[in-house]
Amino acid sequence: MVYAAIITIGDEILYGQTLDTNAHFISGELDKIGIKVKLRLSVGDQSSDILQALDTARNSCDIILTTGGLGPTRDDITKRTLCAYFGVELARNEDALRDVENFFNKRGIVMNELNQMQALLPTGSKKITNSMGTAPGIWMEWNKKVYISMPGVPHELEHMLPVMVIPMIRQNFVTPVIYHKSIMTAGIGESILAEKIKDWETGLPENIKLAYLPGYGLVKLRLSAFGNDRDVLQQQVSQYTGELQKIAGEHIYGYDELSLEQKVGDLLREQKETLAVAESCTGGYLSHAITSVPGSSDYFTGGIIAYQNKLKVEELKVSESTLRQEGAVSEKTVKEMAEGIRKKFSAGWGVAISGIAGPGGGTHDKPVGTVWIGLSGKEFTEARKYNFAKNRINNIRYASVAALTFLWQRLKEKN
Amino acid sequence: MVYAAIITIGDEILYGQTLDTNAHFISGELDKIGIKVKLRLSVGDQSSDILQALDTARNSCDIILTTGGLGPTRDDITKRTLCAYFGVELARNEDALRDVENFFNKRGIVMNELNQMQALLPTGSKKITNSMGTAPGIWMEWNKKVYISMPGVPHELEHMLPVMVIPMIRQNFVTPVIYHKSIMTAGIGESILAEKIKDWETGLPENIKLAYLPGYGLVKLRLSAFGNDRDVLQQQVSQYTGELQKIAGEHIYGYDELSLEQKVGDLLREQKETLAVAESCTGGYLSHAITSVPGSSDYFTGGIIAYQNKLKVEELKVSESTLRQEGAVSEKTVKEMAEGIRKKFSAGWGVAISGIAGPGGGTHDKPVGTVWIGLSGKEFTEARKYNFAKNRINNIRYASVAALTFLWQRLKEKN
Repeated sequence: MVYAAIITIGDEILYGQTLDTNAHFISGELDKIGIKVKLRLSVGDQSSDILQALDTARNSCDIILTTGGLGPTRDDITKRTLCAYFGVELARNEDALRDVENFFNKRGIVMNELNQMQALLPTGSKKITNSMGTAPGIWMEWNKKVYISMPGVPHELEHMLPVMVIPMIRQNFVTPVIYHKSIMTAGIGESILAEKIKDWETGLPENIKLAYLPGYGLVKLRLSAFGNDRDVLQQQVSQYTGELQKIAGEHIYGYDELSLEQKVGDLLREQKETLAVAESCTGGYLSHAITSVPGSSDYFTGGIIAYQNKLKVEELKVSESTLRQEGAVSEKTVKEMAEGIRKKFSAGWGVAISGIAGPGGGTHDKPVGTVWIGLSGKEFTEARKYNFAKNRINNIRYASVAALTFLWQRLKEKN
Repeated sequence: MVYAAIITIGDEILYGQTLDTNAHFISGELDKIGIKVKLRLSVGDQSSDILQALDTARNSCDIILTTGGLGPTRDDITKRTLCAYFGVELARNEDALRDVENFFNKRGIVMNELNQMQALLPTGSKKITNSMGTAPGIWMEWNKKVYISMPGVPHELEHMLPVMVIPMIRQNFVTPVIYHKSIMTAGIGESILAEKIKDWETGLPENIKLAYLPGYGLVKLRLSAFGNDRDVLQQQVSQYTGELQKIAGEHIYGYDELSLEQKVGDLLREQKETLAVAESCTGGYLSHAITSVPGSSDYFTGGIIAYQNKLKVEELKVSESTLRQEGAVSEKTVKEMAEGIRKKFSAGWGVAISGIAGPGGGTHDKPVGTVWIGLSGKEFTEARKYNFAKNRINNIRYASVAALTFLWQRLKEKN
């Protein structure tokens, strides 16, 4: 077994101002390749604390990964501290300098002195390319341990780790065989799903672990099989997912990291259909989810965010009497919105959302979290009511996922 | 200065299945009362790892707080490990037993043996009442250090810490004063900002620390002042932020945790103006950012996501010849889009974004990451070009922040 320690560096983490999502992300990525994270540490931007953390980490671990403190500004001290720890100097790495130069050239920006300093790396270390920013990562083998230093900016780390670092780790360490399979469900809560698949879960063999990973309105099940032979594990897992399909297949929209918006997009493309969206309380979030999928222009015609009632009437042809009698958050309104956008944008499907995201706007009959979702196809228009009763941002997210779930359920009936 | 260490215990954290929000919460609460968190550790449900973490923590800290591993199930081993560490036994704590009995009586549930075990505490320790669950917290003074053990269930911890533990800490330690101030900037990169404020930064006194916290297209600066008197610190910090305002004021849009979309909203509300948005490549993300602010319906009329060129013509009145001659990602197109949406939705301001988010769609002249942003007011319409060259999701985020920055710069000129 290969053991790893993660050290996240930054006062902002210790002060409770920044949530440490980096350590979480690294944990998950290492777990996927069978590296066991034994220890996580967070320390501030102080050399002595970083040195102590490095000592603690190497005591019990083979790989020590750090994030943070690689940027060009003065509070970034990881590099200098690593040098002190390894007993080496900072020296210009020509390879890293070319990367930094390319980064700036592409953007037509002139490099300043601080930027040039980013190409300084501890002697004896390897540069890890950072395609998302200017601070390269560092790979250092020292005293039979590997030290990997990565930037703290989440989107830089989230690219560098899986694309650059994980392959390097695989090359340098013998990792056990773990086979993961994720089963993506929609339209069912975690506890109801758990009840439903209880017997199946109990029947899993010792070498297969099940984890419930709930997200916004979705539950991901992850099977992790441990063994020596990937093909054997794959076959074994495939047998159990097959059984699960029989028990809970109606809630399974896909496997592995497929997102629901991707699945909906795939179905629309297969069925040569198009989609238009009318949003009120979700304010663009549903459209954003749909268009976050590359190639979504194949089936997504467009959307209207009709935040004001006036626009619901003018743009979406919701009748004024509906708004007057039923209100903007009502079955009739979302049906008219869904039909309105479908016709206006000449799409095969129209989805509409209207609700009370909060914190204001709630009433006794329609409290915060009340959301109506309308779905209009060529043959029918229908609507569903939801009560999320969460905070504004969560209501927006849950409503968008509910709309995608609704559409997915109808689309798969056509398949 | 009083130093604290936080140890979170649980395999699910190390495997990347559960985001460690507990450590984040504890950090923030301790920071508020001037306790300096020097170190955070996460270890799995293994006695040897917990013991090692306790040793590491007490090396440099006065207070050691742990969460997790206090519940009744078998993988909860914190209590036994603490006993081993302190060299004491687990014994029934009558006070804790009464709490547990009360908890079950109130709910009309019969206690089982596992529940009774929750009243066992290390001899010499004090019980910390848990009003949200059955596992009491533990306060232990040993070898001149204080060990505080709390449950890992977030809502139990989030009640116990501020209500029970913080008052006990205040009673047992003399706590210094820390004053934080965040300065929010837009429209300038981290390294250029650092260059610009170099002299100011060098001139900061010993007791004030500066941190750069870059986000998507925004940089937050945080000043942390240490001392004895809050008023004095506040005054001191206010002097330095005043100086910073003179040097880099044009990039500062606000203070503390103000978001740029909130600032833009505040300005629109003050100026009694309204905003409409036309999005292409950002697919609803800009509208989502704007409407994530409570009360945004005061100034946001709505938006159109014109993903297809046909809609740019029909809905936004972009001329067909513009699209033919200049393309959808061009100065002229975004200007016509911005003007089109402003007029269509009768808004004071219209913002438009058109670009190539990627991964497909890039050309030699217009590579992935090329984004045009148009801004139309009552008196003028203008446009800016950006090259983000990042991945799809990041291009979407950076483009949205750039649009908000553009609008903010024009709105503040009116103030």
